[in-house]
Order: sequence, then structure tokens, then C-alpha cells
Amino acid sequence: MAAFPLKISATDGAARTGVLVTSRGEIRTPAFMPVGTAGTVKALTVDQVKSSGADIILGNTYHLMLRPGAERVARLGGLHKFMRWDGPILTDSGGFQVMSLTKISKVKEDAVTFQSHIDGSRHVLSPERSIEIQADLLGSDIVMQLDECVSWPAEEARARSAMELSARWGARSKAAFGTRDAQALFGIQQGSTFRDLRQESADRLIETGFDGYAIGGLAVGEGHEAMCEVLDYAPAMLPADRPRYLMGVGKPVDLVEAVARGVDMFDCVLPTRSGRHGQAWTLDGPVNLKNARFAEDDSPLDPASDCPASRDYSKAYLHHLFKSEEILGQVLLSWHNIAMFQSLMSNLRSAITEGRLEAFRRDFAARQRLG
Amino acid sequence: MAAFPLKISATDGAARTGVLVTSRGEIRTPAFMPVGTAGTVKALTVDQVKSSGADIILGNTYHLMLRPGAERVARLGGLHKFMRWDGPILTDSGGFQVMSLTKISKVKEDAVTFQSHIDGSRHVLSPERSIEIQADLLGSDIVMQLDECVSWPAEEARARSAMELSARWGARSKAAFGTRDAQALFGIQQGSTFRDLRQESADRLIETGFDGYAIGGLAVGEGHEAMCEVLDYAPAMLPADRPRYLMGVGKPVDLVEAVARGVDMFDCVLPTRSGRHGQAWTLDGPVNLKNARFAEDDSPLDPASDCPASRDYSKAYLHHLFKSEEILGQVLLSWHNIAMFQSLMSNLRSAITEGRLEAFRRDFAARQRLG
Repeated sequence: MAAFPLKISATDGAARTGVLVTSRGEIRTPAFMPVGTAGTVKALTVDQVKSSGADIILGNTYHLMLRPGAERVARLGGLHKFMRWDGPILTDSGGFQVMSLTKISKVKEDAVTFQSHIDGSRHVLSPERSIEIQADLLGSDIVMQLDECVSWPAEEARARSAMELSARWGARSKAAFGTRDAQALFGIQQGSTFRDLRQESADRLIETGFDGYAIGGLAVGEGHEAMCEVLDYAPAMLPADRPRYLMGVGKPVDLVEAVARGVDMFDCVLPTRSGRHGQAWTLDGPVNLKNARFAEDDSPLDPASDCPASRDYSKAYLHHLFKSEEILGQVLLSWHNIAMFQSLMSNLRSAITEGRLEAFRRDFAARQRLG
Repeated sequence: MAAFPLKISATDGAARTGVLVTSRGEIRTPAFMPVGTAGTVKALTVDQVKSSGADIILGNTYHLMLRPGAERVARLGGLHKFMRWDGPILTDSGGFQVMSLTKISKVKEDAVTFQSHIDGSRHVLSPERSIEIQADLLGSDIVMQLDECVSWPAEEARARSAMELSARWGARSKAAFGTRDAQALFGIQQGSTFRDLRQESADRLIETGFDGYAIGGLAVGEGHEAMCEVLDYAPAMLPADRPRYLMGVGKPVDLVEAVARGVDMFDCVLPTRSGRHGQAWTLDGPVNLKNARFAEDDSPLDPASDCPASRDYSKAYLHHLFKSEEILGQVLLSWHNIAMFQSLMSNLRSAITEGRLEAFRRDFAARQRLG
């Protein structure tokens, strides 16, 4: 019996929509999780994030364990209280950032050792320590197992060894997590772009038994087409009655294609990172607000949006804020992008419910190409 | 007949409280105007500024004429529409920034010429052009005359020549402004710390006749005591039935002392600038949130405040945001400081109405010293 029931209300092809019922409220699926890296969805108040339609956000174990420190967050009442987000939080294991952000890291069977990118201090992250940080200290609702994610392209032997280590770490994570009613543990499928490895990874995770299953090791440089090829088979390898979470994805077109292939959850820094750099995501693709063509464009990014940042401010004003390097530009465009991503997820849920996902997907891809 | 009536509802010693009735709504006085330098109160949405209790904001002619350009703002419907602030806006003349921000500027009888600090381009600002930018292009509600502000300390001869030029520019500004019902023009008293010059300046401004009178040339390095000495006599030189505006001031103790001496309006970048650098203004003085003593301080800056930034976030969280250089820290602390300044003005208005300003002032000074 999984911690959080997934109640699927409609399917359309491989796609599904419904709710994941957590102890901190329902997550409408397919769901996009804004990334709250270091205890903040960058540049936004939690009220702005909530008003954009997000049911759940993601926290980064790596960043939080280094600063302010997991024990400190625990003493301050846990991550929800610390950052004032009362909805569900999913935390990653820290492994991906250890391997991508630190100059020196060493993966051994027992744990990964690394130097902090902030002050060079030495740290150890084991599957058990990652569970302790996420589940006990931060108080995360959805806890991810520690895994090893290989870069792309990877030799098959390298992809196999990382997949096998991830499977063993998954079993250790499960043992450390134990049985909990109010928190869930997700396993992570690896195997790069090798179908046999993806199948073996899924089989071993299912044998261990998780509350949900993530598809890891994608969005690491393989590109949209190669990712879609893996998504043609990977989600179906994972249990249909459990949430499937595609980690670190992605662009709006990636989200639509992954949903069509049976994925339920996503996270990505793209909307907030783009927003801080002047890029707005729209139904017609991304636009750079710094472009001179917006200097006297009096229209808002989306007059039909409920989000003030999308509806009430002109592109000319946003252009001016970015040209003047004003913080408000970063705030408004992060807010707009988060709201645009949430609106896309809402439209996907409606399309699945109404059995018109295929038409939605075709139209969406055509409009994004126009942008 | 002045454009905007000042309705004084109570006095307490030299202090007064009431409302300045503008065509865009009432300004409760004494009033603190957050500074919206380049079309944005830095880091804050207009809704956050409004919710803090601000009735009016200030816009900088210098910044806006350079970027996005006054004619561009006009084509986009004026400053109110451009930045989405529907309350009154006071704009400065641009003179102070020209003389303080630009490397090369030349003051002549006709106008000041200067090079942009952004791209080195050459510009001319005359009293007439400043009126045109403020009143016609930006669409400001309260327009300031161009003046010359001398640095401190100043020789008396230098202070006199600047005061006299300011008086002549004031008369030219009035002629260019003409008679308007829905906009007001304020003159600016100069004279540094010389009482005779202040009197002569006031006399000449009153002869020209303005809708309101500013006290300029203070908060330029002379310090709190010297400023208070000028404020012991300068406000009384200006008409009692017109608003008195102390430009560029200041710290909370400055505001309290100036209100007690009969000043009605203020502007200062202090709350937003402090906020962006981790300094919070409180009833007990300024505190630096980066200080390690706040790392595990679970209390908010002001549990009794209506402002979410003051009431809902712990000092430990704000400390973390600043240590991590997160934009949200700058947003929340700017918001808190603006709200704290507005709360101070509200408390001053109540103290005047209830005839207990002297006690308020004594208590406030004692608490600020404690901080």
C-alpha cells in the first residue's frame, strides 16, 4: 500500500490525468513543480508561486544541506515552515547536483564524497544520509532515492554500472526510509538511452517497491528527439498505478510530448532561470524581452491570463526593466513563466479529460514552432 | 488658488496632519514617498507598494529621460500607465541626479548640460525642458522646478549663487508650467545652512507663487544635528497653507524630527536601498540581517505588522536568503522597510491628531538609540 494514492480520473492514449493525494493536499496531475532550489523559488514569494497554480514545489537537498544546513532547517521547524510553503514539497536526493556542480566528487559503493562549491568544505552523501536529510530534517513529503546519473553520451558499460549502483542505492534508500504514512519515497530509473538497461532498472526498482517512480538520466544533452525515443518505452516499464516523474524536464514541447507518453510529474529550473534572463515562454514559443522590437509594444504577454505579471504589464515595460537591470523585471518574468507552465499543465489536464490530447499536441507543436 | 488643496485636520506644535487632495486621490500627510527611480520602486510590484500604505510615489526625471526616454513614456501613455501606478506621482526635476551622478555636467544660466552615466551621450536640461518632461511627457501629478543644489559644506557666496539661480529657474519653471488644474508645481528652497539665504530663497519663491514648497539642499552630508538646526527655522519661512516637502530625507529619526518641525512630505531611497543590502529598519533601529546572530532567530521582523514581509517570514529565513544572495531576500526586505516607513508615518499622523507628538518623539528617539 503506497503512501499517497494516485487517483486517475481520465486517460487519453498513454496519457493520464488525476490527483496524487498527499498528506499536505492534492497534486493535480500531470503536474509541473517549480524548483525552490535553496528554500525559495527564485525571485518569487510563495504567494506568487501558489497563485500561479502550483500544487507542489521542489527543494534541492544539495543546496539546503550546505546552506543553511539540514540540521538548522530542522531546528527551525522543517523546510515547509522555514520557507512558508504549506503545500507538498518534493526534494531531490542531492546526487545530481553533487555530480554536476562540484569540482571534486567521488562516487563509491558506500557514498559519494564531495567538496562544497561554496566554501570547498568536504561532505559525504550516502543513500541513508540523503533519506535522513530529506525525510527527517527537511521534512519533505516526497523523498527521492540517491542515484547516479551519467552524462550523455554514455558507453553502455558505464550506463550499466551507474544503473546498477542506482538500483542498489534504491534498495538501501528503501530500507532507510522504512514505512511511513505521511511521506512517500520514489525510486529513480536509470539506463541512459539503452532500452534493455531501462527495463532492467525498472524491474529492479519495482522489486524493491516504491511509492512512485522517476525517470532519471534524461535532459542531460541528448536532445528532444532522443528523449522522446526513450519516453516511447520507459514510462510503460513503470507501474501504471503509481506516479511517474520525469526529472529536470523541461521546455513546454518536452512537457507535452512526455505527458502524451504517460508521464505525470515534472520539475525544471527553466521558467525561473529564463525569467531572470529576460526570456518569456508563450504559447507561440520563447521570446526575448530585451529585444528592441518590444521597446514600444504596449501589449501584455497574455491578456487572458489570471497572473498579474502576464496580464497587467506591457512588454514595453518589461523590456525597459530588463534594459535597466531592475529586479522587478526578474520577478515579473519568473512569475509569468511559472504561471505559463502551470497554465499549460492545466490545459493538458483538460485535453486528457476531454479526450482531445492528440489535437492539442499537434496544435501546440505548430504554435511553438511559429514562435 | 493652488492646484491641490491641503486640508489640515490637526496640529501639534509646529507639526500638522491632514490630506493633500490631488486629482488622483488623497495623500495623507505627513507622507513618505517611496522612490520609483526608473519607473519601478526597486524590487517591488506596485501592489506591494500600495499594500504597504503608500499614497504617492516619486519618479526620477533624470533616469526616465535617459531610459526609456520621456517621449517614449509619453507614447506609451505616460508614467502612471507605463508602471501601473494609478495613485499620484511626484517627479523630481532631474537636476540633483545630473549634478551627483554624471561625471561631466555644466551649469549655465540657461540650462545644465551633461553626459549620460549610461552611455556618455550629451543632454541638455533647462527649467522649461524639465517641466515639459515632467508635466507633459511623463504626466506627473506634482512637478518640481529645476534647481541647483550645492554640496556641503558650501561657502556662503557659492550657496548664494546657487540659491539665486534656483530662484530664477523657479520663475522660469512657473512660466513654463502655466496654470493647470490637475497638476501641481512645487518650488524648491535652497541656501545651504545659511539662515539669511533660506529666508531670501523662501521670499523669492513665494513671490513667484507655487502650489507647494520643497526644502532642498539638505541630507547632503551635513548630518542630523545640522539638518535639524536648519529645520528649526526653514519650514516656518514657507506658507502654512501649502505642503512642505523635505527632499531626500531620510532615516526614521530624521522623519520624526522634521515632522515635529512642520514638514509634510518626504522621499528617500533609504528603505529600498537598505533592503537590497540586508538592512532592516525597525522600531529599535536598523539591524543587519546578514549578521550571524539571526541564523536561527525564528521570530519575524514585526509580528504586529500588516505587511507579509514583516510578519510572516522569520529573521532566520531572511538571513539565509541574504547569505545565499537570493533575490527574494531583496524583495522581502525592501517591502518590509517600505511598510515600516509607512507605519511610522501613520503613527506620526495619529500622534499629531491625538496631541501626543512630543511623547511619541521622545520614546521613538530612545528606542532608535537602543537598536
